[in-house]
Amino acid sequence: MNHIQSYISEHKDRFLNELIELLKIPSISADSAYKNDVLKTADVIKISLEKAGCNTVEICKTDGYPIVYGEKIIDKSLPTVLVYGHYDVQPPDPIDLWDSPPFEPVIKNTEKHPEGAIFARGACDDKGQMYMHVKAMEFMTATNQLPCNVKFMIEGEEEIGSANLATFVKNNQEKLKNDVILISDTGMIANDVPSITTGLRGLSYVEVEVTGPNRDLHSGLYGGAVANPINVLTKMIASLHDENNHITIPRFYDNVEELSKEERAEMAKAPFSLENYKKALDIDAVYGEASYTTNERNSIRPTLDVNGIWGGYTGEGAKTVIASKAYAKISMRLVPHQNWHEITQLFENHFESIAPKGVTVKVKPHHGGQGYVTPIDNIGYKAASKAYQDTFGKTPIPQRSGGSIPIVSLFEQELKSKTILMGFGLDSDAIHSPNEHFGVWNYLKGIETIPLFYKYFTELNN
Amino acid sequence: MNHIQSYISEHKDRFLNELIELLKIPSISADSAYKNDVLKTADVIKISLEKAGCNTVEICKTDGYPIVYGEKIIDKSLPTVLVYGHYDVQPPDPIDLWDSPPFEPVIKNTEKHPEGAIFARGACDDKGQMYMHVKAMEFMTATNQLPCNVKFMIEGEEEIGSANLATFVKNNQEKLKNDVILISDTGMIANDVPSITTGLRGLSYVEVEVTGPNRDLHSGLYGGAVANPINVLTKMIASLHDENNHITIPRFYDNVEELSKEERAEMAKAPFSLENYKKALDIDAVYGEASYTTNERNSIRPTLDVNGIWGGYTGEGAKTVIASKAYAKISMRLVPHQNWHEITQLFENHFESIAPKGVTVKVKPHHGGQGYVTPIDNIGYKAASKAYQDTFGKTPIPQRSGGSIPIVSLFEQELKSKTILMGFGLDSDAIHSPNEHFGVWNYLKGIETIPLFYKYFTELNN
Repeated sequence: MNHIQSYISEHKDRFLNELIELLKIPSISADSAYKNDVLKTADVIKISLEKAGCNTVEICKTDGYPIVYGEKIIDKSLPTVLVYGHYDVQPPDPIDLWDSPPFEPVIKNTEKHPEGAIFARGACDDKGQMYMHVKAMEFMTATNQLPCNVKFMIEGEEEIGSANLATFVKNNQEKLKNDVILISDTGMIANDVPSITTGLRGLSYVEVEVTGPNRDLHSGLYGGAVANPINVLTKMIASLHDENNHITIPRFYDNVEELSKEERAEMAKAPFSLENYKKALDIDAVYGEASYTTNERNSIRPTLDVNGIWGGYTGEGAKTVIASKAYAKISMRLVPHQNWHEITQLFENHFESIAPKGVTVKVKPHHGGQGYVTPIDNIGYKAASKAYQDTFGKTPIPQRSGGSIPIVSLFEQELKSKTILMGFGLDSDAIHSPNEHFGVWNYLKGIETIPLFYKYFTELNN
Repeated sequence: MNHIQSYISEHKDRFLNELIELLKIPSISADSAYKNDVLKTADVIKISLEKAGCNTVEICKTDGYPIVYGEKIIDKSLPTVLVYGHYDVQPPDPIDLWDSPPFEPVIKNTEKHPEGAIFARGACDDKGQMYMHVKAMEFMTATNQLPCNVKFMIEGEEEIGSANLATFVKNNQEKLKNDVILISDTGMIANDVPSITTGLRGLSYVEVEVTGPNRDLHSGLYGGAVANPINVLTKMIASLHDENNHITIPRFYDNVEELSKEERAEMAKAPFSLENYKKALDIDAVYGEASYTTNERNSIRPTLDVNGIWGGYTGEGAKTVIASKAYAKISMRLVPHQNWHEITQLFENHFESIAPKGVTVKVKPHHGGQGYVTPIDNIGYKAASKAYQDTFGKTPIPQRSGGSIPIVSLFEQELKSKTILMGFGLDSDAIHSPNEHFGVWNYLKGIETIPLFYKYFTELNN
């Protein structure tokens, strides 16, 4: 495409300022206290899509937060790209670990981002990466170089399971009809090691509640004589992994695909330094399932992690109490072919079965999704690969991600099209953590690369 | 003593109203936000002791909350009773489980308290029981029947370990010189089954912190590849009990006294219904150390309970995060002869030794205290027993309590005198729990019984 570098350098400051304004809105979908901010963000996205050249933009109501839909159809005979992204963000807590307020974006230089990075919740996941597509669209329409039809579907519930997006997709298959789905909600290995995500893990997220006595008790008068829900919860959770860190839920591994030696050898070629990995996290050792490497543990293997636990007295000082209830939020990352509904049921059955006498256990499924794989001989993958070659001067490495975008497998099921995951963030960008950030170089490189995907995808479809 | 019933019935309403006013002040020593309320409570106690007839009352500064000291010395040749109590209270949370606000006392009838009970934090532990002594003192001085010397020492840090009281006692041995110490901070079996507590458990209270990665991580990108501090903490805590619910800390049981068959048979005579116990707590089974009864488990056996646990995302909805840190508050109840400093050290050594690679562990000792036993041939015990016989018409049962009043063993060590634990609360009064209450009947019965203790103790000393 012509003039893209000049267009970006000319409008760079505006591109940054528009994103910064978007990041100032705390669109936390998990916390109903921020409802108005989430809704306000949808309005901002609508306006930005109109300005970028979409000729139809609408805010589609759902039972939850709305979906912003926009499109520009230039010729029904040309292919159609569906861009998906989300405008909601993770909660920022623990808030006190942020060096600057999560919703007051600042640009600071870092070792990995010598040209500066925007620090704010949502900078990378996913406002920053989603907005790259809006600006790429602006470039293509402003310079009359849009080579195909485009549809945008930007949702506000990705961080809480996309339950209403699923319904929306099922009910709007014709409207959403497309030849390829394009998403930037993942990362790449390094700024000089571009990669494209070809696999995602599935997810099952549950909340458990253990109830002992009908009220909090004095630990002196009752200690040792009744089941303490917190002690019981720790025993139950501890029992979910064996001494090799295999998950002990019966039939949990039934449908897990075992990769061949060859495939694992292929994966092992991705550049990785265990020393740097440990150093970056300030840990003396990695930890995980026996007989798998770190890269395998967080990509091709399913996992079970407690994401939150609470019960009893957690305030200042000491309280000698036996709590009536203890709680935990637990998520399982799944690999392709594991059915998340089935895994959730297996967890529920097993967890209830291991509850000792003296307590009652409730398991509340939160949300989940299927794993996903894109074959690298797919036209969309090839188009993306050529785009990266133009802008990075290197062939991107296909990479399995440990993360989950539950909606991706549903897209394939409902819309019968494959998804290309063009991520421009880095693992070190601290998404879901305090001090989330997104490199300015990465943001602009994404805006530069995306139009080339449109170009090559259209060409390869002829 | 003469006219005591008539005096009580005449002043009953005032006795109740004065206590209710005292209960309105949220003197939560564990939470520095309530500092002014705790200090205000000390002032109220000072005034009440002056009104009750003490001729010297002072607020003694400490490095923490002050100790209110009052005395009335009528004749140095007569014995001296030292009354101990505390004016601080436990935190009220979980606040939403209270039927009425914890610091807005209300009187309601209950099955066990047909004559009404005062519902408020501190109603029984210890404001209500401490104030019985103030009103008993008022009666004896108002009717010129005080038979001996009296000293009051009311502190404001019992619920947080009495650290400064210990220093105060060490530095004021002459001032606090006494022949017996009298405390009402325990319970009795039932209103028609009076009992006197002859044993207390010791305590070691610690807080643990497990640190994994140096920041919260996305559970998809890192899940399964790094040690999750919450999962690790649950494994570490779970390992502190074996399959028989014995505590696994090496040498933990070294100094635990094994009671003889005869003593255990004697204990077993105390009226106890397992069915009612389970019904009262709404549990289908009790739980605890193998080969001991419920009453043994919560009195003559040491225990380890988690009093609070927290880490990761505990808010509304779901957050797929691996926390950097996880925490727990853990308390161990100890039996006589276990040294709490030694046990705290054993816990610290063991807990640090079981930490897996990939995490670091910190153990922060909170506070603790020694266990305690009063022989029933002690003059003080005999005087108390006679007092109960007069007012309850029954000989009280000697009873070992599972609770801890760490300061009691220190009193014996520093002041060389025994403590008599005349408790008038019931286990069902929900101390340390939501809806704590204290029977009106029990409150008045305490005021009636206490002066008789003074009478018999003075007589038995001749």
